Amino acid sequence: MANMAAVKAEKPSNDVGGIAAEHLRQFIARIEKLEEEKKVIAEDIKEVYAEAKGNGFDTKIIRQIIRLRKQEEADRQEAEALLDLYKQALGMI
Amino acid sequence: MANMAAVKAEKPSNDVGGIAAEHLRQFIARIEKLEEEKKVIAEDIKEVYAEAKGNGFDTKIIRQIIRLRKQEEADRQEAEALLDLYKQALGMI
Repeated sequence: MANMAAVKAEKPSNDVGGIAAEHLRQFIARIEKLEEEKKVIAEDIKEVYAEAKGNGFDTKIIRQIIRLRKQEEADRQEAEALLDLYKQALGMI
Repeated sequence: MANMAAVKAEKPSNDVGGIAAEHLRQFIARIEKLEEEKKVIAEDIKEVYAEAKGNGFDTKIIRQIIRLRKQEEADRQEAEALLDLYKQALGMI
């Protein structure tokens, strides 16, 4: 919980101007910790693209492939959800 | 490595039209796995905001605080880097 310690603690009081300061601090620390984790993953993704490029692959095309596959997956899930809905409406499940 | 298995494998050949297909597949699988992890964290962040809101905090203001703290951190790091550079230039380190 390094980030929690990083949250400035000038006002250790638990109630500042009607605000539960400690509780607020904890929410902010949790968000910042997760944002940091997200940033690390985003950097990892960049590194994989760089590695792919280093292996002679065109990263613009790889990005297109990723987008395309994501779209296909979303379409598939939507179709499945609709199928379930129709089945339910017809008493099939 | 569930995602790697999910990558369509119609062409198991390792060289398709001069492309190292298996190698390409692995890069795509790695990117998709990381994108999935990033998505999970983004959802976690949303949940923390929802929880904060449920505890009576104004999430718009929390977002402002997060942005402000990020900016302050960036400024601090920039100042530190510049300080180091000046020190180096002056033979202090």
